[in-house]
Amino acid sequence: MKMTVRVTIWNEYRHELTDDKVKAVYPHGIHRALADGLAEHGIDAGTATLDEPEHGLTQKVLESTDVLVWWGHMAHHEVSDEIVERVYRSVLNGMGLIVLHSGHCSKIFAKLLGTNTCALKWREADEKERLWIVDPSHPIAAGISEYIELEREEMYGEHFDVPPPEELVFVSWFEGGEVFRSGLTYRRGQGKIFYFRPGHETYPTYYHPDIKRVIANAVSWAAPSGVARPVYGNTQPLEQIKPKQ
Amino acid sequence: MKMTVRVTIWNEYRHELTDDKVKAVYPHGIHRALADGLAEHGIDAGTATLDEPEHGLTQKVLESTDVLVWWGHMAHHEVSDEIVERVYRSVLNGMGLIVLHSGHCSKIFAKLLGTNTCALKWREADEKERLWIVDPSHPIAAGISEYIELEREEMYGEHFDVPPPEELVFVSWFEGGEVFRSGLTYRRGQGKIFYFRPGHETYPTYYHPDIKRVIANAVSWAAPSGVARPVYGNTQPLEQIKPKQ
Amino acid sequence: MKMTVRVTIWNEYRHELTDDKVKAVYPHGIHRALADGLAEHGIDAGTATLDEPEHGLTQKVLESTDVLVWWGHMAHHEVSDEIVERVYRSVLNGMGLIVLHSGHCSKIFAKLLGTNTCALKWREADEKERLWIVDPSHPIAAGISEYIELEREEMYGEHFDVPPPEELVFVSWFEGGEVFRSGLTYRRGQGKIFYFRPGHETYPTYYHPDIKRVIANAVSWAAPSGVARPVYGNTQPLEQIKPKQ
Amino acid sequence: MKMTVRVTIWNEYRHELTDDKVKAVYPHGIHRALADGLAEHGIDAGTATLDEPEHGLTQKVLESTDVLVWWGHMAHHEVSDEIVERVYRSVLNGMGLIVLHSGHCSKIFAKLLGTNTCALKWREADEKERLWIVDPSHPIAAGISEYIELEREEMYGEHFDVPPPEELVFVSWFEGGEVFRSGLTYRRGQGKIFYFRPGHETYPTYYHPDIKRVIANAVSWAAPSGVARPVYGNTQPLEQIKPKQ
Repeated sequence: MKMTVRVTIWNEYRHELTDDKVKAVYPHGIHRALADGLAEHGIDAGTATLDEPEHGLTQKVLESTDVLVWWGHMAHHEVSDEIVERVYRSVLNGMGLIVLHSGHCSKIFAKLLGTNTCALKWREADEKERLWIVDPSHPIAAGISEYIELEREEMYGEHFDVPPPEELVFVSWFEGGEVFRSGLTYRRGQGKIFYFRPGHETYPTYYHPDIKRVIANAVSWAAPSGVARPVYGNTQPLEQIKPKQ
Repeated sequence: MKMTVRVTIWNEYRHELTDDKVKAVYPHGIHRALADGLAEHGIDAGTATLDEPEHGLTQKVLESTDVLVWWGHMAHHEVSDEIVERVYRSVLNGMGLIVLHSGHCSKIFAKLLGTNTCALKWREADEKERLWIVDPSHPIAAGISEYIELEREEMYGEHFDVPPPEELVFVSWFEGGEVFRSGLTYRRGQGKIFYFRPGHETYPTYYHPDIKRVIANAVSWAAPSGVARPVYGNTQPLEQIKPKQ
Repeated sequence: MKMTVRVTIWNEYRHELTDDKVKAVYPHGIHRALADGLAEHGIDAGTATLDEPEHGLTQKVLESTDVLVWWGHMAHHEVSDEIVERVYRSVLNGMGLIVLHSGHCSKIFAKLLGTNTCALKWREADEKERLWIVDPSHPIAAGISEYIELEREEMYGEHFDVPPPEELVFVSWFEGGEVFRSGLTYRRGQGKIFYFRPGHETYPTYYHPDIKRVIANAVSWAAPSGVARPVYGNTQPLEQIKPKQ
Repeated sequence: MKMTVRVTIWNEYRHELTDDKVKAVYPHGIHRALADGLAEHGIDAGTATLDEPEHGLTQKVLESTDVLVWWGHMAHHEVSDEIVERVYRSVLNGMGLIVLHSGHCSKIFAKLLGTNTCALKWREADEKERLWIVDPSHPIAAGISEYIELEREEMYGEHFDVPPPEELVFVSWFEGGEVFRSGLTYRRGQGKIFYFRPGHETYPTYYHPDIKRVIANAVSWAAPSGVARPVYGNTQPLEQIKPKQ
């Protein structure tokens, strides 16, 4: 099923410019790899990066974005509070948000979740990750077999200090002995949020067909449902209130 | 069952000093009424108010608090960001938090929940509220019959813009035609949070035996479980990782 | 968005044949009214009724059904255990199930939920029901404004003895003083389940445009996601297991 | 904190009588090992086994049981439907239930959960299991550090075909490459249910101090909260219903 979802991919875009190892893997930036992956699933995506004016996330861009994909790592603190507030308002108003990998420690994810989500275990040791589907009925897992195997990835381990997810789609097994809840859904305001663990900058994770499929599925899942807006504030009674004695 | 839980009740304490109608209902402040209610259930509680130094919430006070009860309304914006951050850290470290009535719009509740939780319907019309128990197995509802009836209260109506609660304990019916999810639990970090709707300052709600019982139950429920702390950050592998080809 | 979902509407179809009041409201049966409602939303639906052979739910019918809609009331006990078991297996294998109104007390709903879901309050008093949306981000609520108002309905009141729903979409207000969780989602196996409260046989509820829309939304939501099947049972290790001392 | 909880431990008690390897590990039966473990935490427990009259679960025994612990494996089908129904009613009326290891495939667990919970992966290969705490705020995890390590256990792997748990306390890592949601909570009626994975009959798992502690914690958690009973059925209006035109 093809949907017309307007997607913007935001990437910090620093590692790829300064680290040869990363540049070799993602010569045009992680955002281009992600956009190409979505294109394979019939989804067009624009891109935005940290060093553009307003980090590329102008009010106009956000107003024409149904789902925002977020990758950041070394420069979380350089994202301005004003832009974070703007993205935050957009999510509460219904924009979907897909947070990838080290984005768990971004300002926007912490603000939406209400915990300091930098707390987890990690290790860079070229180890195998296996993402098991624990919710095979979930549309985000559609088209994947039982698990996704990544030959080399950074390890993230529990405890991951996030609120209990509304839905748990994937749990990762790591060769070095840890597990991680690696596919999580949340809702905030009218916006849907999906956190997806894989994607360390030194590995070709975002070229993996299953990873591309999951991100495309997540974009479709997170797109706004087009619900009418609730009315808030002081209001008149709908029923007649009987006088009290 | 009597537990030794160290409780601090925080009250804005402005309406009671400036509004004769409120003063008549709570001559010693809402915090005193709440403390007296807990005392009936064998729970000792200290108090703190907005206009004390550091709003009465010094580091020392928080370190000796297992559960914090929060009532605020007209002066949310006067609570300093520094103190909010301090309370936030305490909750993430395991302190329980009971947020009452208009505390839904407090800085601390919004920060912990990740939504701008001021969004709901409201009306002051002396109308009847009936809080139905929808989870009779929950310890917070222990000792209550099917519902709690309040002859006159302020109305809060859906949509209430909070994340889906982990547990829904009460749903309110209002005479004027609205419903409201009025008893909600959340976890953030290692802290447990309970939001309880009733308690507009012009009504004697906090003298109602069932309301006192629910707050006492909630305090016992929110007390820390004494769990050992997870270890976060860079870590060594627990298992031997096989060399890749 | 138009989807090709294969729907079967199951109706007990007894009240309409034996009770003049009901016959006047649903002269061709509740199933026909429901099918017509779905047709307005571009969804074709077959029908099946209790008194057909195998209750109209042959293995062949179920194999070509993506979503089953269920209305029953006075003859729950006449539904054969064999057919219940057949429907049960279909749901676990991914068929969606929409349970309407008094279907809460059906064998199939109890078997899937794990509680004796006949336990609730009820009253026939021609009273007003107002179904408030408590989850405006949910696709089942798409296109509805803040609430659905039904001028006359049977009352269902809490406590409703079901497991805590995974998602709570609607809460009903009743004129006589009760509330009810009236739109609930569950997953069992690979199947999605939606319970929707309204639709007493003596009222024209299923002709209401908003009710028709919600049921159409629910059918789209409950349609299988097409996920590959997990493999169960005895298995070989994926990793080499080190010999123990 | 010491509580007076009345516990009954039910054990199939067949492997221990017929398999020398199991007899060597649990010479007095798994039920005795479990009872001894609870005694260390100040909890007295009675026992019952399959081959006693009424499987040891008479109406009288169940009426004086706050929490029932269940271990079964090779003879699930020999448990009579009448006793299963009796246990089922007790859980819905508030009795806690702790289901251990292969009890996932018992009649009572399937009936309460609403899925055919025999579906999972498994392997007997003397491999290491590591149960990671993913919810450190949960009372069932109190007193445990980050994980529990079992040097040799049977593997259970995802997908585990249970409804999404209300709370996920533990996730297991297995040496052979799988993960498993191994500590799950549910509520049914007024009863609390905890499923805990470890405890294959050929391993000394139930002598492990952390395992004993978790089971003791779970018993305390599952004990009834003493809530007043809801009233079900036909009822009178609480509010005056206005006549319709």
